[in-house]
Amino acid sequence: MANALLIVGSVAYDTVETPSGSVTDALGGSALYSAAAASLFAPVHLVAVVGTDFRLDDLEFLRLRGVDLAGLEVASGKTFRWSGVYETDVNIRHTRSTELNVFADFSPQVPPAYRDDEVIFLGNIAPKLQKHVLDQVASPGWVALDTMDLWINRTPEDLHTVLQRIHMIIINDSEARLLTGLPALIPAARRILAMGPSAVVIKKGEHGVFLVMRDGFAALPALPLDDVRDPTGAGDAFAGGMLGCLAATSDYSLDGLRRAMAYGTATASLTVEAFSFERLRTATRQVLDERYRWLHEIARIPEPLGA
Amino acid sequence: MANALLIVGSVAYDTVETPSGSVTDALGGSALYSAAAASLFAPVHLVAVVGTDFRLDDLEFLRLRGVDLAGLEVASGKTFRWSGVYETDVNIRHTRSTELNVFADFSPQVPPAYRDDEVIFLGNIAPKLQKHVLDQVASPGWVALDTMDLWINRTPEDLHTVLQRIHMIIINDSEARLLTGLPALIPAARRILAMGPSAVVIKKGEHGVFLVMRDGFAALPALPLDDVRDPTGAGDAFAGGMLGCLAATSDYSLDGLRRAMAYGTATASLTVEAFSFERLRTATRQVLDERYRWLHEIARIPEPLGA
Repeated sequence: MANALLIVGSVAYDTVETPSGSVTDALGGSALYSAAAASLFAPVHLVAVVGTDFRLDDLEFLRLRGVDLAGLEVASGKTFRWSGVYETDVNIRHTRSTELNVFADFSPQVPPAYRDDEVIFLGNIAPKLQKHVLDQVASPGWVALDTMDLWINRTPEDLHTVLQRIHMIIINDSEARLLTGLPALIPAARRILAMGPSAVVIKKGEHGVFLVMRDGFAALPALPLDDVRDPTGAGDAFAGGMLGCLAATSDYSLDGLRRAMAYGTATASLTVEAFSFERLRTATRQVLDERYRWLHEIARIPEPLGA
Repeated sequence: MANALLIVGSVAYDTVETPSGSVTDALGGSALYSAAAASLFAPVHLVAVVGTDFRLDDLEFLRLRGVDLAGLEVASGKTFRWSGVYETDVNIRHTRSTELNVFADFSPQVPPAYRDDEVIFLGNIAPKLQKHVLDQVASPGWVALDTMDLWINRTPEDLHTVLQRIHMIIINDSEARLLTGLPALIPAARRILAMGPSAVVIKKGEHGVFLVMRDGFAALPALPLDDVRDPTGAGDAFAGGMLGCLAATSDYSLDGLRRAMAYGTATASLTVEAFSFERLRTATRQVLDERYRWLHEIARIPEPLGA
């Protein structure tokens, strides 16, 4: 039986426009993308908040995949909403509007049944709230954290405090540069290691992902997709797939993290092939394992030349 | 005995400023970087032009590594000069000046002894001149081509004509976008396949490199360097290492190209650790093989989870 994974983050309704189409008030939010991905590997405990307008039926597919929703608070008010548009180059995205709604006063409460969870994912919320979650759990085997420019700019002290209490940070390239002031990603990742975590994972979108530890390094390409329809949630699905795999294995070695990153890559690649949860909703471990083997084939390096 | 590799391109004196320092009138040029890299694998035949101000002694280290200079024309006038500056983010470079000098009237003449060479690298010169080289050789096993924004913008017809006569194109990500008008690199690479070559290699600097063929795909990360002192020549050294390996093996299969790309990556990583040819001058196959194994370790993906 796999260990449980505790995920804290946002649940949202997203309005998204990409060159491939658009959706209005579609299911979204970092915690849901992570949970949908992780639930293919391990039981998931979700801590998040929605408003009274939220359609709980929308989460039925997650419940069927073993996502426990006892930690999902329903607060009076509206659910968090985000709206954004992607350019022809889908690596470039513009936020049209953010309505925090009930998310503005979110104070994550960890149900007693979640307090011994082995793996914790502190999704992209205020560092002070991430710390508040850590204060409520016992002695997790692995704590991972995501953050964003907003917190790096506005609450750097809080962020640095919580960085000292986690095992792994998962951020994208621009956030790594912002957090360190260093333009080159390898030195930036090493600088972040010095801030506390023992593993730094830098996501680079179509360029893949790399991991720096004090005594190790790993890098993976992204899967070559001909058609990226909606990049929303790709990073969260990556983190969810990665941490779900870690909860399933409790293998936090360099090799264990490599395997987890490869599953994260596989999960993210599925996510972006359709809008919202269209593709992730029907995903199976079998499909992920196929993508894993595809990635394995792509990244393979033959033996060097003979002497 | 490895097959010979014919390289056509530029020989230059470069004035370069990076955050790590600067050099004035240092040895440079695409043909020399490629030749220095390739000569670690196979005999190299160089076709290029220099002015009467060129110090032929500067090439003594290449001659000692088996680079034949019978095809190096000495023309009356000054050697090609390039000057550029790299920003703190060394991925961003600005050209300060370009003096074509003798390179302006370069018309590559392939000596009879080079006409049966197995592998041909058409470095970054006018497509019409690349075609002129192809008209002078017999029936090479593998022809690779580099190009740049200048030729894509100014002489697209010439470029498309020569693309139909080559096996492989090696360009960087921005050139692939410019050549196709497509922002996403995978669709761009597939579009370029349709222009003629059977292999498309897209270099992405610190993000590594990928290869698209009609029935295959491969991707490699870059080596994680803490200190990039001078990126000049990295792409040319990549191409030289890759093609040198292909000349040594005549293995143009997907696996053969993967191995060659890994050696290209190893060679490029050495190049950028020092200015001009400082590092490449003393490089050995042993050092490259160490980097190859390092890359192999970094890109390794363990077996997937058991069912």
